[in-house]
Amino acid sequence: MVRKPQQARSILSMARMLDAADALFAEGGDEALTVEAVVERSSTSVGSFYARFGDRNGLLEAMHERFLERLATGGQIAIQAAARQKKLVGALEVLITHIFAIVREYRNSARFFVMHRSTDVKLRAQGIQANAFFARMFTDLVLRYQNEIAHAKPANAADVAWRMTFAMFAQQVMFENQEVSGAAISDKALVRELARCLTAYLTSAA
Amino acid sequence: MVRKPQQARSILSMARMLDAADALFAEGGDEALTVEAVVERSSTSVGSFYARFGDRNGLLEAMHERFLERLATGGQIAIQAAARQKKLVGALEVLITHIFAIVREYRNSARFFVMHRSTDVKLRAQGIQANAFFARMFTDLVLRYQNEIAHAKPANAADVAWRMTFAMFAQQVMFENQEVSGAAISDKALVRELARCLTAYLTSAA
Repeated sequence: MVRKPQQARSILSMARMLDAADALFAEGGDEALTVEAVVERSSTSVGSFYARFGDRNGLLEAMHERFLERLATGGQIAIQAAARQKKLVGALEVLITHIFAIVREYRNSARFFVMHRSTDVKLRAQGIQANAFFARMFTDLVLRYQNEIAHAKPANAADVAWRMTFAMFAQQVMFENQEVSGAAISDKALVRELARCLTAYLTSAA
Repeated sequence: MVRKPQQARSILSMARMLDAADALFAEGGDEALTVEAVVERSSTSVGSFYARFGDRNGLLEAMHERFLERLATGGQIAIQAAARQKKLVGALEVLITHIFAIVREYRNSARFFVMHRSTDVKLRAQGIQANAFFARMFTDLVLRYQNEIAHAKPANAADVAWRMTFAMFAQQVMFENQEVSGAAISDKALVRELARCLTAYLTSAA
């Protein structure tokens, strides 16, 4: 289906406003994210801003939705790549490598929403729904390697492994590696050790 | 040494102001945390507020320092209890149990600072220094059980285990258990599985 020019223009101007909002937050934090600044930076109009987002909260919701969609796309690509691995440890290493790359790409947006979700009920609900979705993708992947899993409750263990993976994702969002402990570790080494840790857990009987 | 009454009064009024600030944030978030509200709730005076804290930023720094001191005290008690365990898995389970209890007690303060540290350079620096301190406490504990550790680089593995423990601490601060995956798990079961996971990692050779 060919989009009408007007609709395509409208979609492009929305994307420009969202890009401007992401950039403003990255540069100046929450305070820099005003309707006026978004409109000016995206060369749109106050009228088109309000027509599209309703108000600043509407903008935040749209930013959050786009962010979660991007994470979901990145997550699906990561899972597909991981699932091609023969062994669980390889699958986890590929998956976590992708997750760390996603963090690098979307760290600003992610930090923004970690800070906002704590107080915004609607964004928090969206985030929690997304977590459940990602959890299912992760546990489905792990359970493809059920022949390697020695834990008595594979589904529960896969869920715990997800919780740890998500926690490390959030840690990568909020901190540089050397801020967490003072000891130096490269992203590559950290990914390898995490995959090794989760594999040791899933594949050991006690 | 007996404190002069005036000094004791001053210390008490500072503690009252910090308690009031914690409570105000817990109830109404960052916006509720105004100098006026702190003074009113703590039955102190604007003059004594400014004499003590300089400004609102000074209050935030004092809140953060008290919070980190409390975490350090809780952490030391946790380490002492953990170090009495015969086996690594028991030590980690005791330690993580304490950490989860600390989260429950200080979750409001912790959320506040997770949100503030992202943008406040001074608080972030304080937090990073504290992380290095906690990392050392954790790795020292783990390396007491060196005879059980099969990882080729025990110190590096202990550091990775710290990173995962800290990540789960932060996850407990920011989320309820059922918000992370949609699957149900009790705190007690989660603690046990984390201890088991870290132990499997540290005690396996490959």
